[in-house]
Amino acid sequence: MASQEPLVAVTCTAPVNIAVIKYWGKRDEELILPINSSLSVTLHQDQVSVSVCKALFNTWDLCTYRLGPDRSEVGQPRLQACLREIRRLAQERSSAQDGAPPSPSLSCKVHVASENSFPTAAGLASSAAGYACLAYTLAQVYGVEGDLSEVARRGSGSACRSLHGGFVVWHMGERADGKDSVARQVAPETHWPELRVLILVVSAERKLTSSRAGMQASVETSPLLRFRAEAVVPASLAEMTRCVRERDFEGFARLTMRDSNQFHATCLDTFPPISYLNDTSRRIIHLVHRFNAHHGLTKVAYTFDAGPNAVIFTLDDTVAEFVAAVRHSFPPESNGDEFLQGLPVKPAPLSDELKAALATEPTPGGIKYVIATQVGPGPQVLDDPHAHLLGPDGLPKPPA
Amino acid sequence: MASQEPLVAVTCTAPVNIAVIKYWGKRDEELILPINSSLSVTLHQDQVSVSVCKALFNTWDLCTYRLGPDRSEVGQPRLQACLREIRRLAQERSSAQDGAPPSPSLSCKVHVASENSFPTAAGLASSAAGYACLAYTLAQVYGVEGDLSEVARRGSGSACRSLHGGFVVWHMGERADGKDSVARQVAPETHWPELRVLILVVSAERKLTSSRAGMQASVETSPLLRFRAEAVVPASLAEMTRCVRERDFEGFARLTMRDSNQFHATCLDTFPPISYLNDTSRRIIHLVHRFNAHHGLTKVAYTFDAGPNAVIFTLDDTVAEFVAAVRHSFPPESNGDEFLQGLPVKPAPLSDELKAALATEPTPGGIKYVIATQVGPGPQVLDDPHAHLLGPDGLPKPPA
Repeated sequence: MASQEPLVAVTCTAPVNIAVIKYWGKRDEELILPINSSLSVTLHQDQVSVSVCKALFNTWDLCTYRLGPDRSEVGQPRLQACLREIRRLAQERSSAQDGAPPSPSLSCKVHVASENSFPTAAGLASSAAGYACLAYTLAQVYGVEGDLSEVARRGSGSACRSLHGGFVVWHMGERADGKDSVARQVAPETHWPELRVLILVVSAERKLTSSRAGMQASVETSPLLRFRAEAVVPASLAEMTRCVRERDFEGFARLTMRDSNQFHATCLDTFPPISYLNDTSRRIIHLVHRFNAHHGLTKVAYTFDAGPNAVIFTLDDTVAEFVAAVRHSFPPESNGDEFLQGLPVKPAPLSDELKAALATEPTPGGIKYVIATQVGPGPQVLDDPHAHLLGPDGLPKPPA
Repeated sequence: MASQEPLVAVTCTAPVNIAVIKYWGKRDEELILPINSSLSVTLHQDQVSVSVCKALFNTWDLCTYRLGPDRSEVGQPRLQACLREIRRLAQERSSAQDGAPPSPSLSCKVHVASENSFPTAAGLASSAAGYACLAYTLAQVYGVEGDLSEVARRGSGSACRSLHGGFVVWHMGERADGKDSVARQVAPETHWPELRVLILVVSAERKLTSSRAGMQASVETSPLLRFRAEAVVPASLAEMTRCVRERDFEGFARLTMRDSNQFHATCLDTFPPISYLNDTSRRIIHLVHRFNAHHGLTKVAYTFDAGPNAVIFTLDDTVAEFVAAVRHSFPPESNGDEFLQGLPVKPAPLSDELKAALATEPTPGGIKYVIATQVGPGPQVLDDPHAHLLGPDGLPKPPA
């Protein structure tokens, strides 16, 4: 037995993205090709990192670890699909360049460790960040440059959107081989500096239906989903792109809410039906509409992925008042100090008129906490070696 | 002042109907013409009665009272539309018969009192029963025979379906004047004697969005609703008619659930979105699917109108076990004795296998009570004078 000797170690982070025109449904399960294009906003980065260690064995084995809260090893077939894809790209590009045989690294064992700081499977697209991070990190290890959409997509469709910062469109593409199903930046993270994002964490319970199983069931049983993908999304996507380019917040906000509602409508039209929203989600929806009605202006928008947590879009001048409205409607139960995380938000008074307009029975504890954030950049290489998740032996470090 | 002298007093009852292919959206607000045909099951009758008193004054005034829990007078314009319509029919038919001038009754004052035994506006189609009753009672008073669809429809669209017992289709019609938008019986109440209906009363709170306002908003804003009405319902209606005629319970049950889900999907696709289902509704949906999955057979179906209460369809041999499953998942809080109302249901044991299959955290008090009933006949004339809701002075009796 040869001893294990880490040759390359790279640690990267990749961001979560939140779709404002949702992806739901594949036209090819194997290649992960969507039935409609989607558009997302990349959030400021979390610590969602992947570390890769290369050892000496001349095998094609892949040894993976995901260091979630439960240290479970997950998604092996999809991780392997990503690895196959990056190796194929590395080989293609290496062959194209000088006709030389593939670099030795292509036949080596790889250790991967990843960690998500978001609650996994609570509908906050943590798998998108995870697979974008994997693709980006493997690209560093194998020296692959250029478009990584295909690598990330094979892990999780929406992961390709986390390869870019700012505002990102994932074109569904038309080719059967998926070569044109790629993510492209619509506008960089500096494009709309006033835009703010609030994540209202309603529940960290694992959802009953995974996105993957859910969208497959929807494609098979929902006539409304087919109609949405073919007849509604193309125009919505064009309009959303315009709203982003022109920084038209009201247009952006209304379309974001309508698209979220329509996505959840197709979930309900699935058989058996899928419900990701719960009563607290519905109270948040109601709160947003009341808040906007009070102002006579669409100042706040909600969107919900495959879970009950709300993602709120608003502008910097509205954050403080809206957070006060959230506190009023969902009084924090015990963690008053930790209720608001992320970017600082100044306390703001709530006018009696607005309180009356909200007209809701307060629901203590309905929202666990709020993360204030903004649009952020794409994946990053971490230079700090202490951030590496794998020890010098190529195995995951024990949890701190 | 002449003294009031009651000349005619008629008391009738009319049934609630539950749509299994839902009506949602009008193509004509004034004439109440729907954007799609619908199909309903008429439930065994409640005490939903209307009493009419004719006085001597030669006026066209209409004096109406609705004796709800709050004794409020409601729906005046729609009540008057019904009265205008029945007077027009009476005049038309009288003229057609002998060319004689209209009977004196046409120019007389009418007192109407109505009472609903179902919680009004909780999504149990009480207004349908009320307006069917009004149309039927006025027809007795004015001696109008034949189709009353138009009269009832002007009060509340789905009221025309409550004019018949058994299984009823409301054809949307094509004419601009609505003359072909009529209700017809598909099969009488004796057609499917094994069919049972359970009403799971989740909440008697008044709903936030009335059906009338809700469907108008949906027509204006939901692209999915238009698609449903045009591209999905025609085939569903044909298939549902076949299921009823052939007493194909599994087909009936699956289509009933899918249609209910799709209706609620179009509500969610409305902007701002409408949510009639709450977390308890969703738990009931989940319970039904688990129950069916356990049996490997679609033995139970749910449907939800514009409110959180579930209407369950099943066959007589399944009622006891399903009610036991409901009791298990939603333990009655205090009214154990009154939890089950209507038809008697024998207690049944719940197997450990089924308990495990349900796999739900019990929700005490989630369901207030259950009404067991079956398919029933259309409107009826009450012969008992004590049942009259108007006193001899033509005014509503004080509450007992």
